[in-house]
Amino acid sequence: MNDAAHAAALQTRPVSAAPAVCDLAGLLDALHASAAQRDLAGGHAAQEKQWIADAGLLTLAVPREFGGEGASWPDIYETIRKIAQVDSALAHLLGFTFLQVVSVYVWGNPEQRARYLSGTVKERWWWGNAVNPLDTRLVASATGDGGYRLNGEKGFCSGTRGSQMMTVSGHDPQTGTTMFAVVPTTRAGITVNEDWNPIGQRQTDSGSVSFAEVRVEPDEVLQRADTPYASLRTLVSQQVMTNLFVGIAQGALDEARAYVTQYGKPWMTSGVTKATDDPYLIQRFGEMRLQAVSAEAMAVRAAYALDAAWQEGPSLSAEARAHVALATSEAKIVAHRAALDVSEKLFDACGARATHAPLAFDRFWRNARVHTLHDPLDYRVRDVGRYALSGTLPEVSLYT
Amino acid sequence: MNDAAHAAALQTRPVSAAPAVCDLAGLLDALHASAAQRDLAGGHAAQEKQWIADAGLLTLAVPREFGGEGASWPDIYETIRKIAQVDSALAHLLGFTFLQVVSVYVWGNPEQRARYLSGTVKERWWWGNAVNPLDTRLVASATGDGGYRLNGEKGFCSGTRGSQMMTVSGHDPQTGTTMFAVVPTTRAGITVNEDWNPIGQRQTDSGSVSFAEVRVEPDEVLQRADTPYASLRTLVSQQVMTNLFVGIAQGALDEARAYVTQYGKPWMTSGVTKATDDPYLIQRFGEMRLQAVSAEAMAVRAAYALDAAWQEGPSLSAEARAHVALATSEAKIVAHRAALDVSEKLFDACGARATHAPLAFDRFWRNARVHTLHDPLDYRVRDVGRYALSGTLPEVSLYT
Amino acid sequence: MNDAAHAAALQTRPVSAAPAVCDLAGLLDALHASAAQRDLAGGHAAQEKQWIADAGLLTLAVPREFGGEGASWPDIYETIRKIAQVDSALAHLLGFTFLQVVSVYVWGNPEQRARYLSGTVKERWWWGNAVNPLDTRLVASATGDGGYRLNGEKGFCSGTRGSQMMTVSGHDPQTGTTMFAVVPTTRAGITVNEDWNPIGQRQTDSGSVSFAEVRVEPDEVLQRADTPYASLRTLVSQQVMTNLFVGIAQGALDEARAYVTQYGKPWMTSGVTKATDDPYLIQRFGEMRLQAVSAEAMAVRAAYALDAAWQEGPSLSAEARAHVALATSEAKIVAHRAALDVSEKLFDACGARATHAPLAFDRFWRNARVHTLHDPLDYRVRDVGRYALSGTLPEVSLYT
Amino acid sequence: MNDAAHAAALQTRPVSAAPAVCDLAGLLDALHASAAQRDLAGGHAAQEKQWIADAGLLTLAVPREFGGEGASWPDIYETIRKIAQVDSALAHLLGFTFLQVVSVYVWGNPEQRARYLSGTVKERWWWGNAVNPLDTRLVASATGDGGYRLNGEKGFCSGTRGSQMMTVSGHDPQTGTTMFAVVPTTRAGITVNEDWNPIGQRQTDSGSVSFAEVRVEPDEVLQRADTPYASLRTLVSQQVMTNLFVGIAQGALDEARAYVTQYGKPWMTSGVTKATDDPYLIQRFGEMRLQAVSAEAMAVRAAYALDAAWQEGPSLSAEARAHVALATSEAKIVAHRAALDVSEKLFDACGARATHAPLAFDRFWRNARVHTLHDPLDYRVRDVGRYALSGTLPEVSLYT
Repeated sequence: MNDAAHAAALQTRPVSAAPAVCDLAGLLDALHASAAQRDLAGGHAAQEKQWIADAGLLTLAVPREFGGEGASWPDIYETIRKIAQVDSALAHLLGFTFLQVVSVYVWGNPEQRARYLSGTVKERWWWGNAVNPLDTRLVASATGDGGYRLNGEKGFCSGTRGSQMMTVSGHDPQTGTTMFAVVPTTRAGITVNEDWNPIGQRQTDSGSVSFAEVRVEPDEVLQRADTPYASLRTLVSQQVMTNLFVGIAQGALDEARAYVTQYGKPWMTSGVTKATDDPYLIQRFGEMRLQAVSAEAMAVRAAYALDAAWQEGPSLSAEARAHVALATSEAKIVAHRAALDVSEKLFDACGARATHAPLAFDRFWRNARVHTLHDPLDYRVRDVGRYALSGTLPEVSLYT
Repeated sequence: MNDAAHAAALQTRPVSAAPAVCDLAGLLDALHASAAQRDLAGGHAAQEKQWIADAGLLTLAVPREFGGEGASWPDIYETIRKIAQVDSALAHLLGFTFLQVVSVYVWGNPEQRARYLSGTVKERWWWGNAVNPLDTRLVASATGDGGYRLNGEKGFCSGTRGSQMMTVSGHDPQTGTTMFAVVPTTRAGITVNEDWNPIGQRQTDSGSVSFAEVRVEPDEVLQRADTPYASLRTLVSQQVMTNLFVGIAQGALDEARAYVTQYGKPWMTSGVTKATDDPYLIQRFGEMRLQAVSAEAMAVRAAYALDAAWQEGPSLSAEARAHVALATSEAKIVAHRAALDVSEKLFDACGARATHAPLAFDRFWRNARVHTLHDPLDYRVRDVGRYALSGTLPEVSLYT
Repeated sequence: MNDAAHAAALQTRPVSAAPAVCDLAGLLDALHASAAQRDLAGGHAAQEKQWIADAGLLTLAVPREFGGEGASWPDIYETIRKIAQVDSALAHLLGFTFLQVVSVYVWGNPEQRARYLSGTVKERWWWGNAVNPLDTRLVASATGDGGYRLNGEKGFCSGTRGSQMMTVSGHDPQTGTTMFAVVPTTRAGITVNEDWNPIGQRQTDSGSVSFAEVRVEPDEVLQRADTPYASLRTLVSQQVMTNLFVGIAQGALDEARAYVTQYGKPWMTSGVTKATDDPYLIQRFGEMRLQAVSAEAMAVRAAYALDAAWQEGPSLSAEARAHVALATSEAKIVAHRAALDVSEKLFDACGARATHAPLAFDRFWRNARVHTLHDPLDYRVRDVGRYALSGTLPEVSLYT
Repeated sequence: MNDAAHAAALQTRPVSAAPAVCDLAGLLDALHASAAQRDLAGGHAAQEKQWIADAGLLTLAVPREFGGEGASWPDIYETIRKIAQVDSALAHLLGFTFLQVVSVYVWGNPEQRARYLSGTVKERWWWGNAVNPLDTRLVASATGDGGYRLNGEKGFCSGTRGSQMMTVSGHDPQTGTTMFAVVPTTRAGITVNEDWNPIGQRQTDSGSVSFAEVRVEPDEVLQRADTPYASLRTLVSQQVMTNLFVGIAQGALDEARAYVTQYGKPWMTSGVTKATDDPYLIQRFGEMRLQAVSAEAMAVRAAYALDAAWQEGPSLSAEARAHVALATSEAKIVAHRAALDVSEKLFDACGARATHAPLAFDRFWRNARVHTLHDPLDYRVRDVGRYALSGTLPEVSLYT
């Protein structure tokens, strides 16, 4: 088979016109079928986001009292991993919708919780955000009535494009504090810019958002609390990323297995007649799986720790919260490395023809590479090391 | 402080004359206090084995119906890890006593189970073994009455020296099969040779045993079954080793932390005033902990898998058993590497003075090195790889 | 600085309209200035290839007796590394021009050597090839006069597009052997297809070439010899790749240094005020350099071994040739790993903003990834291992 | 073969009563034959040091004008590597004799050079030292005539036991400077303590030395200079260690090959009939060799850099010296890692029986581990990283 035929064959994986996305397996197949093309194209995955909403996944993290699934954190993250296996960009969007739901839950008053969490269930809202703490260009000017006016810009606003609701944070120059609020994405004065163009995670809609005289009503302002319990929110976010990494590793392994099983040819001096009998190829798959499985075990361990802390509720102690932070960092480090390594080794397993651009097999590595850079691995290892050497637990920070 | 003073100070860790070993913490302190000296001396740890028996640990794996603790596998392995942290040789002996208990449980008839398991509880038996399947020098000649006579030798008979009971396997030349039985270690004709002299795991009493016209009574012969359930025995054994490795990694990390905290000096060009503030030392501890924690997470995952299969009982399917075997291999590989790496890096953390021979800090690496060679890592990775590439589950073998 | 401004700033590196490419430094600057854009665009780099020709580099490997530079192999490969630092695709094209020159030199008769090697000097020929040994679709039918007619296709014909001359190999069904010849790329019946679309090495013009009734004159047919000396040609080729890998590693390190020096910001909890003082960032650069330098040392060692063998000439023994093959494989393995690792770690050094797609910082990893898959690393390690374990020297093969 | 027979067989490698040590190969065989026993015994290797002296090796680094070999640094270090392959402790002693010769050469006046360097040739002096800069307990009190009296102690005095001459450094409290001198080891008041008891490098005679009213004559005092040229002495020392590491890696590989070739048995599920055909074992040897060869290439590169600087003589610039320091650190880091890794993997290659204590196969790892802790690897990586990131060359220090 020549190159063109080879590529054509690979492109003919059937994409059903109307995928049966009512179940998770059907959704995963449908997302996988177009993942390579959508990675190459970038931009916004409106149709696929609709499928995810249709599959009922948006309410997984909404407590049952508001009509949601109220799933446990281990279950929520398992779903994220499964989606990340086939498309880590869309898994990111779903995970960040969960994160905004949690933000409302821990910082909102009863009325806000009821409005936004029930709304998420009834209206199937996708949530965006404009809360990147490292970008301080957005100014929130108090209007005297408890509300604010927003002017300026935020970068890395994952999920905002195509969302119905969003969280937003702005710097209040009068008080020197940060205002945190919920607004509909369609509010007048909000412009979602289509300027997201990274080497990976290309459909996370993480571009910038501009705000021009955007009104924030008093009852839209959340009361950001820094209790140990409320700050679990940060760990929810970090575990979203951790499970994206695990999913990427598992997805790269799946892709490699499928390719080698179907197209693999034994090396001319291997002495075997089937690629799947090659002793060195078997070893590579063994090592890839070991990394993926280790990362998953660490992610599950961290999810259980989070779940236990979450169930303690507002009385959660700082020390108990710090132990969850430690477990989260440990899992994130292991998963970070697994995602990069497995997605690189995919090619050693598949060989030269797997570098044909339309296959976009490099998307696993590019996705992993973009997503593993939110905060430096080294400082996360430092947190683990300080605990191991001196018993010092990690402090609450923007990323831990 | 000069070298001699340094060494003397390190030797003065108090060893209580009569350690409070009635609780696990007291036992661990007592074992740790003499671990270095006993490693250097080698030989048999009669006193320490008595402490372990006194602490009531020998019956952990004996089901409650026979008066034992009937602990779950995750709990049993946690105990093994804790002891391995301070002394992986004695942890091996305890783990192998559990293994013989399991052998009697899965291969014994009701009368044998009652006799040997209740006996273990009442008499606090340490169990040895002479069942190394790779050593075929021991001949079991049928005596016509259902019993046998044993002549020959077995190597690597861990735990037999100083034990009260032992399992033994011999080659029956008439049938070409292997006989498996229980005999008291003191039975006439059995000679436990004091020829165990390895570079590590020096107090596992793993020397050879000679048999000269040793009588095996008919009711001592176990009926070796190869059902999936009975062959969980092999996985019990492999998880003992896995948890020894994890304990070694954790113990090396503990030793490094204690040493650096007490004796560590910052490097002259580090720019810090305390070793515990050295950015690179912190990183080393972070990496050591990451390895130890990953290995533990994998070991716990495998222990839960074993426990679930164990509770299924004799109806366990071959496929379900194979999945436990896979999880066991995955954990063992990760733990194998963690034990070697952490015990090597202990020295990078502690520096040149930590190589003083009486400290025996190299015992962690030597113990790990000896114990990680029962079967080749590569073939265990192959099993994982075959599953990852082709979905082939591991077959039952002597080591999997 | 927001994202757009950031990207704009990065794009404003001055590209001189008429680069001073008469010297190597000027050429390297000019190639570097457009490397990212050309990577994204793919396709053919006609202008840049002209610059390389203008700089007089095409004749480096042509012996002095034919008017060439007659440079030593260590010097030739140093040049390839330097170009690969800024553009590993064009370095590949240059290296493969050298490879065809060598092919003519070792397989040509005196008249052919004179014609093609002098021609390379006088006409500044770029050489392409259609000799991929794994692709057997091209048929060479003997015409009875010592010439052939070619029909069929070859894939992976690096450098053919835009070349003036090319080597070609075809299967002769009558004799079962392979014919090897030189033809002008413009010969009637040759179609260079623009179908090269990989994830990296995008401007190596490695697409397929179709042949329809292409005439090969008798005096264009080379006499492929399999003497140890002639088969050095394969090692020349493997060392081209090795030095591409080294250059990629060095180039990724250069790019990371330039970016961090200009744009690096210290992490919020680092306690330092300049990124270049960050202790962990310093360590990352240390490790990246160690890999690049180790790979270079191995490549230089292999180049000297090749040079010594080359100077022995046709009397070179098989054993001496095999030792060069061994050193070549050793260097290629080390360089393979260095290229992948350094180009991945570039991002850990530079941080999240470095993933902006127009920067194309991932081109180093993509280039490394595509180029390291010509033949499986594992079988090269096997060759080294067989020598290390049993003293068996590598056999002559298509890749060793 | 049972364990005892196995061990006996391994012990019967013939040790010639009167080894033919007049040539290097004979010497190496003789040292190898007793290396395991001497490692286990520790203590002083008087006989073996005599063989080394008899082989004429002590004068390799003495310039020809004083009757020495005046060998180049690449040649000197090759000899050190060869000896380290069979016995890294004795190689250390030889390397440190060279180091003291260099100290006299760079810090001595013409009369001192003549006396001590010609003496080394005529009298076959082994040199010791008491100059550990981190140990400041030795006081040098000026006697007013240009001489000193020494009182106190030094630790880590490698090679002093059994030496004829030694260098010594002491703290002069009056001037706050360090006095540096040469004295005969037998001088009244010097006591060489037999207190060296580390886990490895057990025969380097690196115990402490006590000084009680030891007279230093005025013409024994060297004039320590800090010129770039004189400070090459530190790099000579660091490259001694580097080449010990390389030799350890090579020696471990040799031992593994010899063992597997003679005693290796294929694993039961390997499907091969000879251990040397095991695909995974072959890979392990490949990786071990790659590490050893990479370390050697880096060591050779550093040795050539040193040699070029050495030949420049006293006019050597600080910058040129710093580049040698950089290359030295780069080689030392790579060799450090190779020595540890290869000596650990020796056991994966050889299997469980290779852990029999009398074989002392762990001596390679123990030797590597002790010797790689003189100064922390991390700070050496930092030096490389500072250069890679900021172009900052390493400063002259006690170890660089």
